[in-house]
Amino acid sequence: MDTPYVAVDLAVLRANITAMAEATSATGLALRPHAKTHKCAQIAGMQRDAGAVGLTVATIGEAEAFAAAGFDDLFIAYPLYLSDTKARRLADVATTASVRVAVDSVEGAVAMASALGENRGRVEVLVEIDSGHHRTGGDPAAAGEVAQAARDHGLRVVGVFTFPGHGYSPDARLAAARQERDAIAVAADALAARGIDATIRSGGSTPTVEAATGDVLTEVRPGVYPFNDAQQFHLGRIGVDDIALSVTATVVRRSGDRFVLDAGSKVLGTEKPAYVDGFALLPDRLDARVVALSEHHATVETSGVVPDLGAQVRVVPNHVCITVNLVDELIVVDGGDVVDRWPVIARGANA
Amino acid sequence: MDTPYVAVDLAVLRANITAMAEATSATGLALRPHAKTHKCAQIAGMQRDAGAVGLTVATIGEAEAFAAAGFDDLFIAYPLYLSDTKARRLADVATTASVRVAVDSVEGAVAMASALGENRGRVEVLVEIDSGHHRTGGDPAAAGEVAQAARDHGLRVVGVFTFPGHGYSPDARLAAARQERDAIAVAADALAARGIDATIRSGGSTPTVEAATGDVLTEVRPGVYPFNDAQQFHLGRIGVDDIALSVTATVVRRSGDRFVLDAGSKVLGTEKPAYVDGFALLPDRLDARVVALSEHHATVETSGVVPDLGAQVRVVPNHVCITVNLVDELIVVDGGDVVDRWPVIARGANA
Repeated sequence: MDTPYVAVDLAVLRANITAMAEATSATGLALRPHAKTHKCAQIAGMQRDAGAVGLTVATIGEAEAFAAAGFDDLFIAYPLYLSDTKARRLADVATTASVRVAVDSVEGAVAMASALGENRGRVEVLVEIDSGHHRTGGDPAAAGEVAQAARDHGLRVVGVFTFPGHGYSPDARLAAARQERDAIAVAADALAARGIDATIRSGGSTPTVEAATGDVLTEVRPGVYPFNDAQQFHLGRIGVDDIALSVTATVVRRSGDRFVLDAGSKVLGTEKPAYVDGFALLPDRLDARVVALSEHHATVETSGVVPDLGAQVRVVPNHVCITVNLVDELIVVDGGDVVDRWPVIARGANA
Repeated sequence: MDTPYVAVDLAVLRANITAMAEATSATGLALRPHAKTHKCAQIAGMQRDAGAVGLTVATIGEAEAFAAAGFDDLFIAYPLYLSDTKARRLADVATTASVRVAVDSVEGAVAMASALGENRGRVEVLVEIDSGHHRTGGDPAAAGEVAQAARDHGLRVVGVFTFPGHGYSPDARLAAARQERDAIAVAADALAARGIDATIRSGGSTPTVEAATGDVLTEVRPGVYPFNDAQQFHLGRIGVDDIALSVTATVVRRSGDRFVLDAGSKVLGTEKPAYVDGFALLPDRLDARVVALSEHHATVETSGVVPDLGAQVRVVPNHVCITVNLVDELIVVDGGDVVDRWPVIARGANA
């Protein structure tokens, strides 16, 4: 197989999927994995078989891909602004799947109801709130106002959700989980004050999910956990043996204490948060550090032995969701043998 | 058209291609544009029509795509390590195109000759040297040794090349061009001392090309110039009106002095060198700054008017090569109208 290619270790993948299903089940939380990470029907199927209640997706395009693959319970965790085309596409998905969507402002709720028109009753709506990540989502205390506007305009509001993205930091992880819980509680109360029952109270996320409990939340939406990545390793959440996805690359140059691999930003991405050391992780060579990344090259420094020219090396991306979206298929490896190739069915489905 | 999508302004694209062709022609340099930027046969055709002598590509996969599209003069500017499969693929490309490849070490030259076997005479070879970027490429003074090893093993060495990637900084741009020239001169002399004529003396690159002269170099390989991007703007090389490619995005949230767009790292990439302000550029809103980027969201702060919910906004990526590789087609716009859709024929061609 010509390098670089993206390999998935089937045994590790299975173990990760089972462990998350058991952990959420033990806390009484419904598991709705985020499919943006894998964009792959086979992996979504394994998650469903392990007990996931449905899938989270990021875009209508992802919803279309998974609905076409037979998944019938989808939450688009994004405050969509619907063009006429997007409104039609969303209504089409809702003919074969139960579809939940998001609103995060009064203005957005009114616009969504208007765009959906006579189809407005065919989707369920969650109100997105901000629990500290400061991206989308409004003030939790104002969630009642948003929910009421949505209901007054004919939308079926069934709950609230948040994404605790500020939990992506070793020190912030558990605090973010607490903020998530508190914000969801405030928002659910704000809906109750308007006579709207927040049946669904949905939270993130791979870094925070282990601290999630069933006293406030009803559902969690971790994405990265089937694969894990260098971010999760540097967050301290996992060990290198828990990483199921890596890019296989070839040494194309060696010089002094450096070597260069034929895997760059066009397969690894370039995300590098401050808590992550290096532009990628070599799980079999923790003595090595990826000091630079260009489109087709990773430059690596090591205090150990420099590998031979032509040697193949496994490279773990910092953020796995980016890598999956850069390839058309995942090469499935079991016990060192290639056993399958799974298509990335929602690659590039940004709209 | 549903957002986000990648739009190319045909008039600006044409002007950029013409200007580079005229500038290199005036200095007597052959123009071999790097096709990794656009991965698009229509744009490569415009470059050829404007006088380009051939194309530069980054991988065998890109060479295959452009050879299949009828381009018959290709330089893979990368020190390839050839598996048996890659050696066969390279030989196949060489049946329809003139193919040049790179070596940057004695070890690499021997490995390439061995992998190509009886096909070793079907490609031309350039020796890559390091002019200060410190990625691939060896010591310019040692280029003669590499060239001789290649020749002794049956490869046809026709010259030297370098990539002055350290020119990607406002202060380093012109100094990098001088280092490129000096390094190429040293390397050409080193080949001459072994009786090998460096007929081809090839340099980069959009940031350094304006300082390239024909006294040492014979050829330049800029990539980004047909589109330009936020990096080129912040390097001071161009104005916003010289940018031909942008992502059209929709405002999905507004709050205070902030708004959120439906374009994130899965279409814009996340590169942000220190000299670039923000994670992307809003060319029609220079009062606005992209302060955060997640997979499907750009968070923007402005000192001016926050646009309406649902408004469409143009967003220029920091590094355009990353954006093109994330989509299947470019939407071609002329005078505000969509006039064509061009496939990205080498998207994901990393191997």
